[in-house]
Formats: sequence, C-alpha cells, structure tokens
Amino acid sequence: MKKIINKSSEVVDDMLEGFSFVHQDLIEKLEGFRVLVSKKNKNQVSLVSGGGSGHEPAHAGFVGEGMLSAAVCGEVFTSPTPDQILEAIKASDNGQGVLLIVKNYTGDVMNFDMAKELAEMEDIKVETVLVDDDIAVEDSTYTAGKRGVAGTVLVHKILGAYARQGKTLEELKELGDALVKRIKTIGVALTAATVPEVGKPGFELKADELEYGVGIHGEPGYLREPLKSSKDIAKELVEKLARSFNFKDDSQYGILVNGLGSTPLMEQYIFFNDVKKEMDTLNVQIEYAKVGNYMTSLDMLGVSLTIIEFDEDSEVSALKEKVDTPGWE
Amino acid sequence: MKKIINKSSEVVDDMLEGFSFVHQDLIEKLEGFRVLVSKKNKNQVSLVSGGGSGHEPAHAGFVGEGMLSAAVCGEVFTSPTPDQILEAIKASDNGQGVLLIVKNYTGDVMNFDMAKELAEMEDIKVETVLVDDDIAVEDSTYTAGKRGVAGTVLVHKILGAYARQGKTLEELKELGDALVKRIKTIGVALTAATVPEVGKPGFELKADELEYGVGIHGEPGYLREPLKSSKDIAKELVEKLARSFNFKDDSQYGILVNGLGSTPLMEQYIFFNDVKKEMDTLNVQIEYAKVGNYMTSLDMLGVSLTIIEFDEDSEVSALKEKVDTPGWE
Repeated sequence: MKKIINKSSEVVDDMLEGFSFVHQDLIEKLEGFRVLVSKKNKNQVSLVSGGGSGHEPAHAGFVGEGMLSAAVCGEVFTSPTPDQILEAIKASDNGQGVLLIVKNYTGDVMNFDMAKELAEMEDIKVETVLVDDDIAVEDSTYTAGKRGVAGTVLVHKILGAYARQGKTLEELKELGDALVKRIKTIGVALTAATVPEVGKPGFELKADELEYGVGIHGEPGYLREPLKSSKDIAKELVEKLARSFNFKDDSQYGILVNGLGSTPLMEQYIFFNDVKKEMDTLNVQIEYAKVGNYMTSLDMLGVSLTIIEFDEDSEVSALKEKVDTPGWE
Repeated sequence: MKKIINKSSEVVDDMLEGFSFVHQDLIEKLEGFRVLVSKKNKNQVSLVSGGGSGHEPAHAGFVGEGMLSAAVCGEVFTSPTPDQILEAIKASDNGQGVLLIVKNYTGDVMNFDMAKELAEMEDIKVETVLVDDDIAVEDSTYTAGKRGVAGTVLVHKILGAYARQGKTLEELKELGDALVKRIKTIGVALTAATVPEVGKPGFELKADELEYGVGIHGEPGYLREPLKSSKDIAKELVEKLARSFNFKDDSQYGILVNGLGSTPLMEQYIFFNDVKKEMDTLNVQIEYAKVGNYMTSLDMLGVSLTIIEFDEDSEVSALKEKVDTPGWE
C-alpha cells in the first residue's frame, strides 16, 4: 500500500487537524468531535451532512457560506455515530431548524435518525432529505434501496443556495425531496480503493478490466468488461441513465462528472467531452456542467456521471451561485 | 496503461473541447488554437501563462477574473509553439501590455521568448517573469538552472490580484521578479506518471520506494529511499527547504501542499498537518496555507511542498482574495 499517511488508525484525525488549520478563517472544528461547523451561515436554516471519511472533499469541503452549515466525519467508509451528529446539529442550529442531508446507507440512515430524535428531545426542529441517486443496482453491500453517491453534492449546493436565500425548514425539506428524484448517478471503476486499515484494494480488477456501477465504497457494480475508450464508457453510462430518465425535449439538464480519487483532471474533461457528444445525439439540452473531484472513494481510479433534470431555472442559478467553501470552486 | 481516454494523440484536443464547453461563461477557446482566453480581465495588464499539458488544472484552470488572462496549452509535457503563444498575447492584450509567466524549462523559455519578440514587432509591450522554484536539483532533464513547478501557481495568484488592482506592466514585472526569489518548492513521488503516447510509467519505483525531488515531468530527484511515513517525508522536505530559506523570526510564510495527480485529498491534508508541525518546531509563522491539486503530473502519486516568504501583507491578501476561475477555490 503506497500512501502518505502515519498510523492507519489515525488518518481521519490527522486529516481533520490539517483541514481545520488550513480553513480556520471559515470553519471551526468542535473540540473533541469530528464535526466541522461554518463560522458563517448564520440567520438561516442549518444544513448538516456527513458520512464516512474517504470521500474528500465531501463532506467537510462543502462547509461554508452558501452550502453546508456543518459536516460530521466518520471513520473511513463508516457512518459517524449519533452523538457526533447531534453535536453538529446543536452547534449549527440558529433557531430556524436543521436539515440533514443523508446518503442512503443503512448505517447512516440509522445514526442520523437517532441523532434527529435526540435533537428533537432538545426542542430543535430537524428534517431529513435522503439521497439515493446511484441507479447502478437496487440494494447493495451497505444499503437497502439505492446508494447515495456524487449527486449528493448537487443537493448540498442547490439547497445551500435556497437556505441562504432564507427558505424555511419545511420549504427546504419539500424542495429537497422533490430534487432528489431528479438526480441520478452511475459510476465506473478502473481500479479499487484501498482502505488504510485494510492495506489492500477492496476488490481486484485485471490490468485490462473495468467495472460499471461500482459504489463509492467499492460495492459491486453490474458489469465487468475489458477496458474501453472514454467514448465507449460515456455511451454505456449515458444510455443507462437515459433509460432511467426518459429525456424530454422541453426539459433542461445538468451534468456532473466526478473523479473518484486518483483520476487525472485531464481524463475527467475528456470523459465529459464524450458524455456531451452522447447527450447531443439524444438532443438533450445541457444548461449546467461541472467536472472535478467532489465525492471520491480514496484512491479509486474512475469517474461517476450524474445527471440532474431541472425543474425550475432557480436550480440552475443555485448551482452557479458563488460560494465560500474549501471544496467548490 | 489504465486511462479514460480515446486516441493517445488526441488527449489535449479532447480535453480542451470538454473544458471550453464547461467553462464557456468565463473562457473562450480561440478557434484553431490551443489557447484559452478570459472573457473578463479587461482594462488591465494581461497575464499569460502556459506550458505543456498534463499539469491540470494548470494552466487553463487559472484563467479568469483575478488570475490569468490567457493560457496556452502544449502537447503533454511539451512546450507550446511560439505561434500559439503569440495568439494568446494578441487575443488578451488590452493595450496595457502583457506579462508572460513562464516556468523555467529550455523549450518554454525559448518559445515564450520568440513569441515575445514577434509580439513586440506588432507593437505590443511584453515582459516575462521566469519561475524556477524547484530547489531539488540544479539543471535537469529539460532545464538549465532550476525547474519551475507548483510555486508558479502562487505567482499567477499574487500577480493576478495585483494586475486586477491596476498595477502597470513595469510594476508587475518588478514585483514578479522579486516574488519568484522568495518561492521554493520540493516534491516527492511514490509512483511515476504515464504519458498517454508512451503507455508506460516514465520511471520505475519499487512497491516500497519513494523518490525525493522528482520533477513534474518525472525528472530525476536527489534521493531514493524506502517508503516513509507522512511525518518523515514532511521532515525531509521541510529541512531541505529550511536550509535554502534560512527562516527568520520576524518574517511570515505561506505553504502550498500540492497533489501531483492521483494523491487523495485525505493524504494531502495529512501531509500538510505534518508539515505544519515541523514548521512549528522551527518557530515559523504560517500566515497562509493551501492544499489541493494545482500543478499535477498526470497520474503521478506524490505531493510537492512550496513555501513562500512574504515580503508585504499585500501578498497574503492577494493570495486570499476571491477569484473566478475553474481551478482555484
């Protein structure tokens, strides 16, 4: 295992110590907790997200003005515990309530739910938006239903803009539930991620193989094939998404190409370019496009493709709006 | 070779086609050229940079408000030709002159110089700031003198802020020449990069080896050793930089930890944390810190560490100022 780390068991704490120094103008780490709270985002509903670590910049990198009020960081690929989530809720609530944005994994759902109940006992209003954008497979290693993956970042961004505008907790919950239904993602892996404490890749792919539909923790996908060109990969993923979306001529769409950790930006733009060409042949209007590492899987080589169908123009503006966070340019 | 590409010979054009679609609000690609020009940055001195491709987000990702006016993209790890550079100069000049920010490689220096001469024949005022921040070795595979690496990005950012404030070409040239002397970088590689047209890594490191001082094109470093902890790597690089800087108690410093392409952000923050601790033991004041992929080497696994000694507070503000570019949050 080639990694720039110290003790495998301390990667999250070491990372958070570095992160909170670098971003001290914007973000405060709660003493004794793996919770990062925005120093801004006051006088608005608080958005809290989080999950296992290893997906950086998600989720801590999206804390800041215009996105999340707080993030909770679990161990690598492991849900944070309810007490940690509760602290994030309490520290970020401005009296206007807290919206939890949770990726659909059994552990996360359970722990965020428990934290919600505990917060409600302290008279904090809490709602949850569950993200399950990965259409690769139904049910998976850590999930009942579909997994939550890179599309979650678009939820952070759009609801973050709406929260800054002053929408209420009830409005954000309703908008979020509707939004999630229009966001779909599918990934492809060329290599697996290596969890530091495990020390070897989570699965094995041959030198000339790729796997479609792999999850961000290395959960199995739906098809293993010989290595393809970017164009062929784009064709496969767009077709799969097209079957699920049923693209409409009068709708507008957005694309997120997300690097899974060790994929050079050059390849991500090349892949985007091929996705765009596929979308053009289907006559799909692209109103928004974003390329980069947003929801990674440690050192996995690969990309995910997220498509969002916009319901209103305000969603496009919400995505384009400038924010002040460590991880979203 | 596992890469998400189509033809090896077309990676730069495919990337630029994708890039210019994604960033069309901000950046225009000149028809027939590998030149990207900011749609903003008017009424100011134009900053132009560039070099071989494969270092993304450098240099195209730094085109935009508050940084570069234009970037010229060569083939992978290959200098752009003078005619391409000339187009970038002509397209971005607002009548106030053009400052070229050039990394010190023989090919780049020669081609940017030639473009400067051609532009001057068309009555455009041009000055050059040469960046040679890599202290690992004197002279190298493609260089006489020291190489230009990640520190270049800090030059883009600081001079970009100054240019936006309205400084003249002569002022920028003088400030830039002084600035470059106070920026020093050193890198470490755990794996080599694979150039698409070559198809195999540029050099071989064993499974348990790293190499200190490797260049961003895989140029040889100064020491090959068994794999170390992040803490030990930080100690080695900080000590090497300390010998070159002679840190002063009353000076302020900034740190850039730069991922070389396939290094997870988690590891970059862990490494930063260890660098910070080393600097603390030396009583060095850190006024600015930045972590992420800025000057990469395709899929190289590793990091570089850049330290800047600030001369005035305005340099810290210039680094912190918000910009609108694809690659700098």
